[in-house]
Formats: sequence, structure tokens, C-alpha cells
Amino acid sequence: MKKLYLISTGPGDLACLAPLARLALQQCDDIVGYGLYIDLLNELVNNIQQHDLPLGQEIERARLALDLAAKGKVTGLISSGDIGIYAMATLVFELLDYENKPEWQDIEIEVIPGISALQMLASRVGAPLAHDFCTISLSDLLTPWETIEKRIHAAGQGDFVVSFYNPVSRKRRWQLEKAKQILLDYKPKDTPVMIGRNLSRKTEKIHITTLENLDIEQVDMLTLVMVGNQETRVIKDTQYVYTPRGYRGKQ
Amino acid sequence: MKKLYLISTGPGDLACLAPLARLALQQCDDIVGYGLYIDLLNELVNNIQQHDLPLGQEIERARLALDLAAKGKVTGLISSGDIGIYAMATLVFELLDYENKPEWQDIEIEVIPGISALQMLASRVGAPLAHDFCTISLSDLLTPWETIEKRIHAAGQGDFVVSFYNPVSRKRRWQLEKAKQILLDYKPKDTPVMIGRNLSRKTEKIHITTLENLDIEQVDMLTLVMVGNQETRVIKDTQYVYTPRGYRGKQ
Repeated sequence: MKKLYLISTGPGDLACLAPLARLALQQCDDIVGYGLYIDLLNELVNNIQQHDLPLGQEIERARLALDLAAKGKVTGLISSGDIGIYAMATLVFELLDYENKPEWQDIEIEVIPGISALQMLASRVGAPLAHDFCTISLSDLLTPWETIEKRIHAAGQGDFVVSFYNPVSRKRRWQLEKAKQILLDYKPKDTPVMIGRNLSRKTEKIHITTLENLDIEQVDMLTLVMVGNQETRVIKDTQYVYTPRGYRGKQ
Repeated sequence: MKKLYLISTGPGDLACLAPLARLALQQCDDIVGYGLYIDLLNELVNNIQQHDLPLGQEIERARLALDLAAKGKVTGLISSGDIGIYAMATLVFELLDYENKPEWQDIEIEVIPGISALQMLASRVGAPLAHDFCTISLSDLLTPWETIEKRIHAAGQGDFVVSFYNPVSRKRRWQLEKAKQILLDYKPKDTPVMIGRNLSRKTEKIHITTLENLDIEQVDMLTLVMVGNQETRVIKDTQYVYTPRGYRGKQ
């Protein structure tokens, strides 16, 4: 049987990696991924043939994983966070859909979910995701900026808690400032904003501020930015942030 | 030291439970939860004092967990899925915020994230969450229906992939039909809809349909309903569903 695992490796700390992912890795002859994320797996991938393709070669990684599986190698394509959320899984299915090589058709594909950055950040600060939320990627590399801007407006209109993935990159910095200005049309200035960098790793940094004071200079590629809804609160004299579900009004 | 763990137990299958959660359970003298979810933990909680409070007693569960921790018991409050997503964590912080008993103030609280239902369903069908998405709870027990309806409109306007939590209950059935009709104003009739019941358990059922054909009778309390965006596709002759990120247009 031809087998391809799409494996989520979580935010980085191996203590977040579920047995499901470990079992999948144990089955693999070959894994394909970005070197940094392969390295985080340490001894879990010692006996596996590793294929490290650099950033920017996402399509090549997905194609190589399909080709290896087609040759009979049990293959794992790995991605940090949840491989289904802004990550590699969709590329495999897109290739299947449009290139549809005959030798790929009988590959059994199994997706292994994992902890995504928004959950890790939420767990570090309290419970900001306890009510309706959305995620928006600010990268306009593949998505037109007007689509992104439409979604930021919708997030404001619906008063969702918003998590911004890919908030900035080295070359791309104005989008987060623009997103902040749009949300300020809908949300109070003192809406809590949570900033998490290198989540779950030794160099993790968490910072809590307000929408008005969100400083783009504090954000880089490895950062997730989360903006509360109109009810999200920071508990006085603590660093706990939570979004109520409304139990208090009910009592 | 007073310690309270807020522990996510994931969708049900223990293979989804990360070492972080297992380690936290091992520290616990007492755990508080809903019986069904405690039972799913099997041998992991054999030597722990268990406090099983029925559905509807959510505030009591949160208060008991804080009180036990205040007495010096290392305590775990458990919740299925991710305890931070539509679950128990926020209640603990709301009690801390408003009741603020002196004996609670020096409790160290640690939140352990876990796989939420939307990730489990996504992993079962392919990669529907690969681009911007939102979650909306259809329960109007604690949230006014007009707020929920506003969010469904926003989800349509922003063309997010939408996951409906608490889509129906025994007494509450019309909300999902209404949500479907609202989304039909924004999304094509043939937008893929994914329905997952008892995710990751032996009785798991996954069903893929279209927005037009979404049949409310197929949905119950244990079901998650996910609606694609305008680009979400089912791959021909397969049961794979994915939302492209736009790599194809870029090539």
C-alpha cells in the first residue's frame, strides 16, 4: 500500500506532539520538510531518510512527498503547527486535483492534526478564544490585498476575536498597520491585543497590549498577533486575558 | 504552591492527547469534569480523586476546581476538545475576575491546549482550513441571536470557511437552518459542507454534502458543521476536500 502522512508537528515543544503524530513518524521511511522544523523533532526522526527543502519550495516539497509515496516509501510530509491551517496539507491536495498523475492516485493520505499557534498563544494568556473567532493571514503573496482587507472589515463587523497569521515579513510591513487602523474603526482603542513570538520554545515571548498601542516594530515573521472582541478583558493586576461566554449575565 | 491545570482532553481518542496533558494529569490530586469526558481518559485518571458534575453545572465545576486548588490540592479541570475554545477555561477566569476570593489569588493557573473538533474534522476530509476561517457557536443560550446572526452575515461577507459549534440541541433546531439560508445569500449553492459526528471515536461519522443540500436532520449535539469558502473544492471521484491558498494561480 502506498502511504503518505501529512504530519503536524505542533508549535515546537515536543511535549505538544500527540502519540498519533509519533506513531505516524515511526511508520515513515522518508520525511520531507523544512530543515528547521525537522530539527525540532530531534531523536524522533533519527532513523528516517530526511529531505530538507528550503523556504519558498513548498510546491516542490509537496510534489516530492507524493512522488516518494508513489515509489512505495512510507512518507511523512511535516509542517509546524497544524499542517491543515495555513500550511502544507492543502498543496498536496491541490497537486492531486490538478496534476493528478496516475501513480499518485492510489496513495492513501492521512492527515495528523496538531496544536496551532493560535491555541498555544491562547493557552499562555488565559482564554481569549472562548467565543467566536477568526483567523486572517496578512500575506498578500498569494491572496490579493483587497480580499484580505474585505476579511478584516468582516472581522470587525462581526466582532470576532481575530488572529493574524503571517502578520509581517522582512519585505512586507505595512499590512499589519493597515489592519490595526481598520479594526480601530470597529473596536475600542483599549481592546486587548496579545502578541506571541516563538511560542512553546525556549525563546518564547508573550506581550499583552491594546489595539491603540500595538507597535508593528514588536512583530516579526515568527509572531502571532491576536486581537480581542469587544468583551475580551485583562484581569486587573494579572496577565490573564479572557473572552467571556456570557455566563455572568445569565446568573 | 497552589496549582490548577486547565486540561484539554482532545476529541476523544487518547492518541490525540499530547504528553503535556498527560504530564499535567500525573500531577493532579483531584480532577473535575463531566463524567463522559472523565471516562474517556480511562487508566490515565485511575489514581486521581474524581469530581463528576453533570451538564449544566459548568459554573459549579469551575468554582469547585478553584476551591480544591485553594485548599492545596493539585487540581485538573478537564474539558473535551481544546479547553480554551468554547469550553471551561473562560469560566475560571471569569470567576477570578468577578468573585476574586482572597484564597484564589495565589493559585497558579496553567492552560494545556488540545486538538479541537474543527481540526479533527479538517484532518478527516483533507485541508478545508488552509485559508482564513472562523468559528461561530449557534447556541443562543448565552449569546443573543442577533449577535450570532450578525456574525453569520460577517462570515458570508468575508467569505471565511465557517465552522458551526453547537449547531443544534434537543430543544434548539431552527438556528442551523437560518444560518444556512443566510450563507446561501453569499456563497454558491454547491459550496462544500462537511459534517462530522463523534469525531475520533469508534462511532465517528463523516458526511460531505453541499450548502444547498445540508439537511438539518442529519445534525445533532455531537456534530460539527463546516462550510467551505468560495474556493473550497471536493476533488473529483474522491472524498477529499480542500481550500486552496492560491499557489496554482502563482505558478
